[in-house]
Amino acid sequence: MVQDRQDRVRLALGISYQGGHYQGWQSQSSGQTVQDQLEKALSQFADHRVSTLCAGRTDAGVHGLMQVVHFDTPVNRPEASWVRGPNALLPRDIAVQWARHVPAEFHCRASALSRRYAYSLLESPVRPSVEHGRVGWVHRPLNLELMQQAAARLLGEHDFTSFRASACQALSPVKHLMRIDICRRGAYWRFEFEANAFLHHMIRNLMGCLLLVGDQRRPPEWISEVLAARDRDAAAPTFSPDGLYFLGPCYAPHWGLPERTPLFDLLP
Amino acid sequence: MVQDRQDRVRLALGISYQGGHYQGWQSQSSGQTVQDQLEKALSQFADHRVSTLCAGRTDAGVHGLMQVVHFDTPVNRPEASWVRGPNALLPRDIAVQWARHVPAEFHCRASALSRRYAYSLLESPVRPSVEHGRVGWVHRPLNLELMQQAAARLLGEHDFTSFRASACQALSPVKHLMRIDICRRGAYWRFEFEANAFLHHMIRNLMGCLLLVGDQRRPPEWISEVLAARDRDAAAPTFSPDGLYFLGPCYAPHWGLPERTPLFDLLP
Repeated sequence: MVQDRQDRVRLALGISYQGGHYQGWQSQSSGQTVQDQLEKALSQFADHRVSTLCAGRTDAGVHGLMQVVHFDTPVNRPEASWVRGPNALLPRDIAVQWARHVPAEFHCRASALSRRYAYSLLESPVRPSVEHGRVGWVHRPLNLELMQQAAARLLGEHDFTSFRASACQALSPVKHLMRIDICRRGAYWRFEFEANAFLHHMIRNLMGCLLLVGDQRRPPEWISEVLAARDRDAAAPTFSPDGLYFLGPCYAPHWGLPERTPLFDLLP
Repeated sequence: MVQDRQDRVRLALGISYQGGHYQGWQSQSSGQTVQDQLEKALSQFADHRVSTLCAGRTDAGVHGLMQVVHFDTPVNRPEASWVRGPNALLPRDIAVQWARHVPAEFHCRASALSRRYAYSLLESPVRPSVEHGRVGWVHRPLNLELMQQAAARLLGEHDFTSFRASACQALSPVKHLMRIDICRRGAYWRFEFEANAFLHHMIRNLMGCLLLVGDQRRPPEWISEVLAARDRDAAAPTFSPDGLYFLGPCYAPHWGLPERTPLFDLLP
């Protein structure tokens, strides 16, 4: 199907998914990724081949509360149809939360001012069961104040090479970490991260280090040493993907995109 | 292995499980039930055939935050071993939360003074995704006050025949419903039920009716008509098992059993 660019509209969609059954976001020849499932449903609904770009690729086992994608299509349907139609075709652990027509200047990745992630963690002598695959787990008690002191040392613009996976394709290891909030609700901890962008495995590597401080195997100052080393071997092992949730990108208000979905109330 | 009764100790265990992959609690020839998995792990750990009784059987898809079982064993090991050992053998969606030696007079079913269940519900135009299998779903907005009015009409001792599955094996349809608490957190509703005991499908049938009142398809007084009819056909269809959690039984304090587990903080 050949169409003039003028005939096409750009759509942005907010996507939620449980990452446990997929080999991450990014399309693979296996077809077992979230992007593959989404594009299959969108292509079937639109009756043409739909290729999407996303705001932040997630690893296998990582969940998405509000991934944002965009694509161009000659199909002119109401926004609500782009939610209901694909949702009837998608597996039940993936859903379109919202759809918006956006100007051709909007780009889900380039227009994002920042990205937010949450890490949900169970602190208990007993491993997860009901919530397996959806929370990380520590059996040692954690100290909030020590973790907050360590987190404060990470804020700002830094070279995060120590927290970067060797496979990372980012052009620069320098990122601006704007916020790390840590709170608990009973046995469940919630860590929230916001940065202009994240390196591959960056949050899981940060989590590994914060938890070594939290259970007092390392002092808070150790985090600064890890950061200064610019060496992956200086940091803790990569922590489990199970409790990691991509909360989504933040955009300038003039694009008119939703900032959150009902799912934001789900995490403990 | 033959042992004198005197040589045996009675153990009570608190069990948590995600019900989605099992054909309910109760043992079946398929072996695909929570009880089958638990007894297999306990038998392997104890090195003798362990048969358990439980405080409340749950249906396929229903979750347990603190199911309680008891059994007798000649094996004398510390309580903590009865947690760690079986947990290393159980599938990752089932865990022993605690173990306690109890007197031979303790009976997990007969000693229970009441049972508690929670129902977790998503109210959203979009179906569940990240939380699929763990919450019920309504797309119509619900009215809290109307549901509370309906719930108040169910409290006390009643013949709950209208809310009873045809397969129910209870000796009497008369139960004492002590408490229905309803609250919301963002898009998620939480219903909590406590009764001396529940009939088969009783909570899912109560949920079906409460939601018909909540979305204003029926007035609160209708609940009293359903109750008085003593006829299953008078009530709403059985609601989804996905959001139903057995919170566990309540016992007299002198048994010294935990009243809750860390998992109670998990539900939205």
